[in-house]
Amino acid sequence: LYPGFEVLDVFGPVEMWANVPDFQVVMIAQKAGPVRSAQGVLVTADYDFTTAPKLDVMMVPGGVGTYAELQNTVFLDYLRTADQQTELTTSVCTGSALLAKAGLLKGRKATSNKLFFSLATQQDASVDWQKHARWVEDGKFFTSSGVSAGTDMALALVARVHGKDQARSLARTLEYQWSEDAANDPFAIQ
Amino acid sequence: LYPGFEVLDVFGPVEMWANVPDFQVVMIAQKAGPVRSAQGVLVTADYDFTTAPKLDVMMVPGGVGTYAELQNTVFLDYLRTADQQTELTTSVCTGSALLAKAGLLKGRKATSNKLFFSLATQQDASVDWQKHARWVEDGKFFTSSGVSAGTDMALALVARVHGKDQARSLARTLEYQWSEDAANDPFAIQ
Repeated sequence: LYPGFEVLDVFGPVEMWANVPDFQVVMIAQKAGPVRSAQGVLVTADYDFTTAPKLDVMMVPGGVGTYAELQNTVFLDYLRTADQQTELTTSVCTGSALLAKAGLLKGRKATSNKLFFSLATQQDASVDWQKHARWVEDGKFFTSSGVSAGTDMALALVARVHGKDQARSLARTLEYQWSEDAANDPFAIQ
Repeated sequence: LYPGFEVLDVFGPVEMWANVPDFQVVMIAQKAGPVRSAQGVLVTADYDFTTAPKLDVMMVPGGVGTYAELQNTVFLDYLRTADQQTELTTSVCTGSALLAKAGLLKGRKATSNKLFFSLATQQDASVDWQKHARWVEDGKFFTSSGVSAGTDMALALVARVHGKDQARSLARTLEYQWSEDAANDPFAIQ
């Protein structure tokens, strides 16, 4: 989390992942305690960067606060450090701009929010930025398009870990109409 | 909010409503401060029931904590009191069981989470419970089906207040594939 994160970027994936029996969700920020979202709601970070546990999956949200974090070397250093231990590193929305700025997406395929696409592309021109994708998987990296696309990406991650049937079953339980084809992007840009 | 609320029940609608310029979102619980969700994440209630401002729109989420709140007369009394001043009263998931228990849905059409449908119907048999509906609008009441359906309901509420074009535009901005037909319910039960 960081000040100005977008709530659905976080809670779409949290809803999906916290309902997978062997997943445990934790919230991390530079400073533990309440963090104000772009929507004004305060959400508590359980850990700061020095107390955070090793992450198997890291997810970096987007939101208007992305602009400030792009200049925050402590934040970017944490992304690099945590990524060294993850099995999967993911982002929603402009979160991929932060991964790119941290240098984690070099030479990879990735995507981002379609309304703020240039914010992502400006961070690292070596990334193969995809303008037509609900989300992109490249090795251990899952990057999604804007806001709501993160929930579809989150289910794709469940499919990677536990298979597509379990991801579909989870979506059904939560009455979620999973858009399970990453190439089906009604918000694609030219 | 109440302990054990479902995060997407809350943050799907919050994402939509907080991005409507003349909407302001506040979080209310019996006790102000951090409230633990069913997914473990702590979210801060800005107000308790005695300090809460008058609400134009009230939204009651569902989640495993619904069972405890059905027995909580302080909570149910607040729903009744707040509802007297709202223009619109809404619920997501098993939140409609709480509205029904509070006696607010008498003789109305309403719906609820399809996996826990009997929890809703048991609260008030005078409600015309709809088994096939993504959400139901009856006068000032909007009740949605489980979890993810709340986001579609939230956009329907924006459409009611500001027209369907603005709701569609908001959905596009947030890259949300709005299921805008309340009768299109892939999770309907027999």
